[in-house]
Amino acid sequence: VGADLAGAADVGRVRVLMEECLAAKGGEVSARTRARRLGGTWLQLSPSGRQRFLALLAEDFAVDHDAVADLAAELTRVPVAERPDVERRLRRALSASRRGLVRQLSAVPGGMKLVVDMRAELLDHLGPVGPDPTTETAALETAALELAALELAALNEDMFDLLLDWFDVGFLELRRISWDSPAALLEKVIAYEAVHRIDSWADLRNRLDSDRRCFGFFHPRMPDEPLIFVEVALARGVASSVQELLDLDAPQSALPDVDTAVFYSISNTQAGLRGVGFGDFLIKRVVEDLQRELPTVRVFVTLSPLPGFRRWFDTAEVGAVAGAAAITVDQVLALRTQLGTMSGTTPAEERENIRAELLRAAAGYLVRAKRGVAPLDPVARFHLGNGARVERLNWQGDSSPKGWKESYGVMVNYRYELSHIEANHEAFASEHAVVTAKAITEMLDPPRRR
Amino acid sequence: VGADLAGAADVGRVRVLMEECLAAKGGEVSARTRARRLGGTWLQLSPSGRQRFLALLAEDFAVDHDAVADLAAELTRVPVAERPDVERRLRRALSASRRGLVRQLSAVPGGMKLVVDMRAELLDHLGPVGPDPTTETAALETAALELAALELAALNEDMFDLLLDWFDVGFLELRRISWDSPAALLEKVIAYEAVHRIDSWADLRNRLDSDRRCFGFFHPRMPDEPLIFVEVALARGVASSVQELLDLDAPQSALPDVDTAVFYSISNTQAGLRGVGFGDFLIKRVVEDLQRELPTVRVFVTLSPLPGFRRWFDTAEVGAVAGAAAITVDQVLALRTQLGTMSGTTPAEERENIRAELLRAAAGYLVRAKRGVAPLDPVARFHLGNGARVERLNWQGDSSPKGWKESYGVMVNYRYELSHIEANHEAFASEHAVVTAKAITEMLDPPRRR
Amino acid sequence: VGADLAGAADVGRVRVLMEECLAAKGGEVSARTRARRLGGTWLQLSPSGRQRFLALLAEDFAVDHDAVADLAAELTRVPVAERPDVERRLRRALSASRRGLVRQLSAVPGGMKLVVDMRAELLDHLGPVGPDPTTETAALETAALELAALELAALNEDMFDLLLDWFDVGFLELRRISWDSPAALLEKVIAYEAVHRIDSWADLRNRLDSDRRCFGFFHPRMPDEPLIFVEVALARGVASSVQELLDLDAPQSALPDVDTAVFYSISNTQAGLRGVGFGDFLIKRVVEDLQRELPTVRVFVTLSPLPGFRRWFDTAEVGAVAGAAAITVDQVLALRTQLGTMSGTTPAEERENIRAELLRAAAGYLVRAKRGVAPLDPVARFHLGNGARVERLNWQGDSSPKGWKESYGVMVNYRYELSHIEANHEAFASEHAVVTAKAITEMLDPPRRR
Amino acid sequence: VGADLAGAADVGRVRVLMEECLAAKGGEVSARTRARRLGGTWLQLSPSGRQRFLALLAEDFAVDHDAVADLAAELTRVPVAERPDVERRLRRALSASRRGLVRQLSAVPGGMKLVVDMRAELLDHLGPVGPDPTTETAALETAALELAALELAALNEDMFDLLLDWFDVGFLELRRISWDSPAALLEKVIAYEAVHRIDSWADLRNRLDSDRRCFGFFHPRMPDEPLIFVEVALARGVASSVQELLDLDAPQSALPDVDTAVFYSISNTQAGLRGVGFGDFLIKRVVEDLQRELPTVRVFVTLSPLPGFRRWFDTAEVGAVAGAAAITVDQVLALRTQLGTMSGTTPAEERENIRAELLRAAAGYLVRAKRGVAPLDPVARFHLGNGARVERLNWQGDSSPKGWKESYGVMVNYRYELSHIEANHEAFASEHAVVTAKAITEMLDPPRRR
Repeated sequence: VGADLAGAADVGRVRVLMEECLAAKGGEVSARTRARRLGGTWLQLSPSGRQRFLALLAEDFAVDHDAVADLAAELTRVPVAERPDVERRLRRALSASRRGLVRQLSAVPGGMKLVVDMRAELLDHLGPVGPDPTTETAALETAALELAALELAALNEDMFDLLLDWFDVGFLELRRISWDSPAALLEKVIAYEAVHRIDSWADLRNRLDSDRRCFGFFHPRMPDEPLIFVEVALARGVASSVQELLDLDAPQSALPDVDTAVFYSISNTQAGLRGVGFGDFLIKRVVEDLQRELPTVRVFVTLSPLPGFRRWFDTAEVGAVAGAAAITVDQVLALRTQLGTMSGTTPAEERENIRAELLRAAAGYLVRAKRGVAPLDPVARFHLGNGARVERLNWQGDSSPKGWKESYGVMVNYRYELSHIEANHEAFASEHAVVTAKAITEMLDPPRRR
Repeated sequence: VGADLAGAADVGRVRVLMEECLAAKGGEVSARTRARRLGGTWLQLSPSGRQRFLALLAEDFAVDHDAVADLAAELTRVPVAERPDVERRLRRALSASRRGLVRQLSAVPGGMKLVVDMRAELLDHLGPVGPDPTTETAALETAALELAALELAALNEDMFDLLLDWFDVGFLELRRISWDSPAALLEKVIAYEAVHRIDSWADLRNRLDSDRRCFGFFHPRMPDEPLIFVEVALARGVASSVQELLDLDAPQSALPDVDTAVFYSISNTQAGLRGVGFGDFLIKRVVEDLQRELPTVRVFVTLSPLPGFRRWFDTAEVGAVAGAAAITVDQVLALRTQLGTMSGTTPAEERENIRAELLRAAAGYLVRAKRGVAPLDPVARFHLGNGARVERLNWQGDSSPKGWKESYGVMVNYRYELSHIEANHEAFASEHAVVTAKAITEMLDPPRRR
Repeated sequence: VGADLAGAADVGRVRVLMEECLAAKGGEVSARTRARRLGGTWLQLSPSGRQRFLALLAEDFAVDHDAVADLAAELTRVPVAERPDVERRLRRALSASRRGLVRQLSAVPGGMKLVVDMRAELLDHLGPVGPDPTTETAALETAALELAALELAALNEDMFDLLLDWFDVGFLELRRISWDSPAALLEKVIAYEAVHRIDSWADLRNRLDSDRRCFGFFHPRMPDEPLIFVEVALARGVASSVQELLDLDAPQSALPDVDTAVFYSISNTQAGLRGVGFGDFLIKRVVEDLQRELPTVRVFVTLSPLPGFRRWFDTAEVGAVAGAAAITVDQVLALRTQLGTMSGTTPAEERENIRAELLRAAAGYLVRAKRGVAPLDPVARFHLGNGARVERLNWQGDSSPKGWKESYGVMVNYRYELSHIEANHEAFASEHAVVTAKAITEMLDPPRRR
Repeated sequence: VGADLAGAADVGRVRVLMEECLAAKGGEVSARTRARRLGGTWLQLSPSGRQRFLALLAEDFAVDHDAVADLAAELTRVPVAERPDVERRLRRALSASRRGLVRQLSAVPGGMKLVVDMRAELLDHLGPVGPDPTTETAALETAALELAALELAALNEDMFDLLLDWFDVGFLELRRISWDSPAALLEKVIAYEAVHRIDSWADLRNRLDSDRRCFGFFHPRMPDEPLIFVEVALARGVASSVQELLDLDAPQSALPDVDTAVFYSISNTQAGLRGVGFGDFLIKRVVEDLQRELPTVRVFVTLSPLPGFRRWFDTAEVGAVAGAAAITVDQVLALRTQLGTMSGTTPAEERENIRAELLRAAAGYLVRAKRGVAPLDPVARFHLGNGARVERLNWQGDSSPKGWKESYGVMVNYRYELSHIEANHEAFASEHAVVTAKAITEMLDPPRRR
């Protein structure tokens, strides 16, 4: 439950508390005490109370737009030599006082997590916006938003700027998560796992066995919270199915024999850090750590879902699908019909009929289906952007109902080769090139027989 | 030694490196590699090379003043609803790209210390400016500075903003420094001690004995560097002489008997953090820690120098001195003459003659001598600003030559009472009130006999 | 599975390995390598192979009884002045070489746990012997044992001597076990809990909640194994039922309010350490720790089972039961009949009828039923021997089927008062006095009405 | 200062305290309290008081020799089947109650160090005995010792047995000692260094520089005391002079270039652990650690003194010296005369004349001079016994006055090759073979010209 901030008196009290936080009165030490009280107030609010709290923060502690306009006008008038001084005043005027409040909240004990969670709630109120700040900005540009919404969005931007700074990867600590980690931490791993649900402590234990690794990034001000973590299976050869990896009864690999590390799950845990990316660093750091620990491991691949494949295949314009997948329009239609009669429980033999064509469609989806100039698939965007290449498709790589629903069970391995990561990234960033293993290329453009 | 950056080619190479750091090309991971290279370059430069490096950073990666002017003009023209967007662009334009470079440098291993030291060098080049950023700002306002100097000053301001944020006291860790601390750390304590020089490891060991405490603030990104540290002596009663405290042969106090903690030395260690204050937090945190550890300790005082007393007494306008000290002009002149015949080695009996009048002068100096509205004495400004009060003056509290030279040997105890700190601070901050023990007040304004 | 040591060749190989461990050849470093190999051999043996390994160790590396006899004869002949030298040789001859082997095994990595587990298996083979070494000795004295059994028993004694020395409480470390402990450790707590089964990780989490404490003793050479641990519930007032404590849905106690610590479960974990007692130290250390952490806690009690009560009540000679319980023979017989018709699921109201008499019987059992001069109940022996007193009986303190089966659901609080522990212990040790709260005494010997 | 235990009353009080420690009365917890008091008593005694304490412990808590004699007589009479039981009682009777007291003292906080230091004092009182327990035993065998001395010696043997067990190398922890170690530990390294005196903290810092390593063994019950430590210099090529290594101004080696680790100082620190050897383990463990850290290091040598060389050369029978050194008697006499005119300050050119012959004498000393069958030189005994070989002699390897006084400045490198250690040790242990590099062999037995 929690307080609601319904009445004007309540709102007024919180406003006064915010103002006191900003007032120099009583010195820095007292300011901290007040910030702690403000944080405590937030924690005890109901959802609607929190919405009011955010609105108050956004609107009453916004930039003074008139002061800014005055300074802008002044800048246009003063001689060049005086500009630096006006610029300085303008810069200060453009920094909303809510930034200072957020900063103060972040500095009290437990405050960093509080601010991250506060932004998560703010994002919920802002509604669906794209996954990166550029897009958020774009969303803002729609003039239809009224002032209040504009200030809420600007508060989000302020918080994003601050979090980007605080969660710079240089501040993060890579820690191994193992069966020797505190139960209080492992409990969070169970809760946060976003790709392949952890069903029990026994399931978790299997994922932390001697032939597994799990690493997470942690922030010194949120030491008990993994920000992102990756689960890795060590094996001889590349696993082609995630069920194989998650099977509690499967034998363990002997470490001296392993030559491959499969990154089969990467989970971001903090909704409030949306847009603050550190996934690419995580993978690179883990690859380096594993190479040091296990020099026999030479191949680093993911086993990744294609979250948008089924939707694309089922609903995209048929000609576009056919073009991307290098099959005919008729084949697409026939496949759609067949798939309409199947489900996650259709016997494997029966599904076998559509294997070749569906895999080709999946290859086409990854390589040719776009949103703008970038790959349509968000996971592909992430790994290709990090310098991986599309390595191999796995028929029925995820045989769970979820796998069927998402991508008709197809999974993909992206491969990270340290010596190619930079060039791949470069090609992707500058020319939007989707670097692809030869086998994939050949599926889409088979070498002509002579 | 070190490279000089003398030729245009050298400078050009560094500029290219800086530009590459800012370029998105190759992704974040590559950007870090380049930042590390840039940091390495800085470390290998000669003093003049570093000066050129700083100039390059300041001038070539400054705010684009024309772009700012254009946006300012645009802001004055657009309808109110479009202002937020222009404001956002303006805010970005006002953030110099050198800020991004400093941020990147700070994030590489060892980078935080590098940035702090870089600012220390920058401050050296900027020349004497006041101890706090407000004053720096003031310095900037003198229009005589040419553009290059303006940009250097603006670079300093950028660095100051960033450091203020990074070194927020919420990020700092209070650690006890003891004889069980690493020698590598203690070596730094010896080097950094700024008030009473540590002559040897034996001297240090004495200051870390069972009846002593030493605490410092540390930053997670500079874990081996104390940012500030305070030395505390535990005793029965308030020590009146620093030589007593530093005497290697003095007996130790038995902990169960102690009732007083004397803060006899506080040293800031990082020149590059000038203006980023955490001294007040340090004292308050240490007082709290000591109260928890040793509940019998009830009195917390400093034993502090009066660094400006002698200069003021010797050189200030004689009427002002007489007025402050509540003695006659003739007495001032007579005292000056007497002091002119004395030195640090004058026998104690002989000095005894001037004791009463000189102590009254010291009281007057602390309570009435001002720079603007604030106390003239910098140490008084610090402790009074933190909420302490002037408690007691100590005749020959520092009998060393340095003590004589600075303040004719007089020292002062400032007292911290947790229950009064906030009120004292408040009175000082809002009304510039110098809170003073009754004994001091009576020295300056003796109760009239009836 | 595992090797069986069936053939003479296999046994011979192990014997040679043992002999090589003892040989000085190749120096200490090589001896360690061989000891590691010997430990590895043990670990890979089947149960019967291990039995043969133990027999080999016991018989082939026993004391040389003839050499001992010769030295004994020599001692009886030599002049007094030469006795010390013969005594020294005799002492060495009396120390079997298997002691050296056990010592070497203990010193390799993982070796201490191996030796402890080895003794656990040895105890299994030796069959039921009393819980303390005195009794083991007694068992040995029965002349019927043949030589092989004698040597096995002597091996046990050798191992016991060594373990007693190695697991001296001065070497043990008290550690708090919490939800922040490694999962690998908590998993062992789940497995080792011997009093009230832990059903799930959720059950464990409840027992490690903010109003609970768990402490264990650890040995530096077995850092991942709790040797013994105790579970404590903090509450306002003394809990009267263990189900109340284990209820996952019960609200937590607020720490500032608690005044009582209930030790509701103590588990020894290492069968191989039988007879090496540290339970009494554990309780005393935990009481001291809790007093320091939570000064408001004043009452320290257990909530303990009466494991032998039902057997005694059901099967002991009826007159003895009546005498102990201060009820008539007829009442005993009537109670037995009634209990014969009840079970753990009999409605509480119905059981209520027998409450008063059964509780009196339980009091009699604790205070008057003996094995020799000591209490018949093993848990009573433990706590009274540690200086606790019998404080209170709890009707249906354990309402589980196990509770009914063991003691018709009755539980008892033993109370530890630091100021009385030594006197209580003394009274128990020297006069076998069962110190008892007044309420218990009055149950058995009600004050006469006047 | 300290109490003297002079009067009978004092002695009586201590005896009662000792008896109470052994009495079961009051339980184990109380026994600990008494042991703590007994330890405190020891710590406050004067040297003569301590001597009386030790005598009391040795004589009043000795073996009951009559009881032992009775049991020995019984053993000679009983049938074979009853022997094990008598043996067991005999074994107990042969274990003096002072052993139990020492054990109890060791288990209180700080007690392990107390027992080690107690044995150091005991060894002082026992007077000069050989460096190893065998020899101590031998010393005991001289029948001239009276009873009191015999019991003191037996007390030493009891303590030795216990310490041998407690300080088993399996219990020890290898820790790196560095400039990041606590000053409180480094202070002890300065005090304990026994080979090349550490003159100052700057000298120590040089020995802990980036191209140096220092490792020590620690015991969990004495965590702040290094038991033994070794100083290692990393370099390109084998250093030939210790002054070179200790030169504060010498440049550091770049780690990637080093190929050699020179063990130039090994110090045992605890006089009370005499005979409890762990030096051989230390070297082997350090070699392994260094190989792991620095794979480019291939050569592991010592730079060792020849502490007995000068005494042997100056005072041994001239024919024996000539024979060992493969020079003529006249050459020996001439050399002695020349050396009589020289000192540590004789110019190097002048010393050069005797270089070849003196080095040959040193080789002869190491290889052929014996005490019994073992090398006369104690350092040679240590390293050869650990499996090293004599590798190289260094003319003026120690140019200090101490070096001249001990060995006319000659030093020797012993080399540890992991693949040969065991065979070398074996050859030394079984055949007393001094394994020697070819260059040394050829000095003593030059290949004939054909």
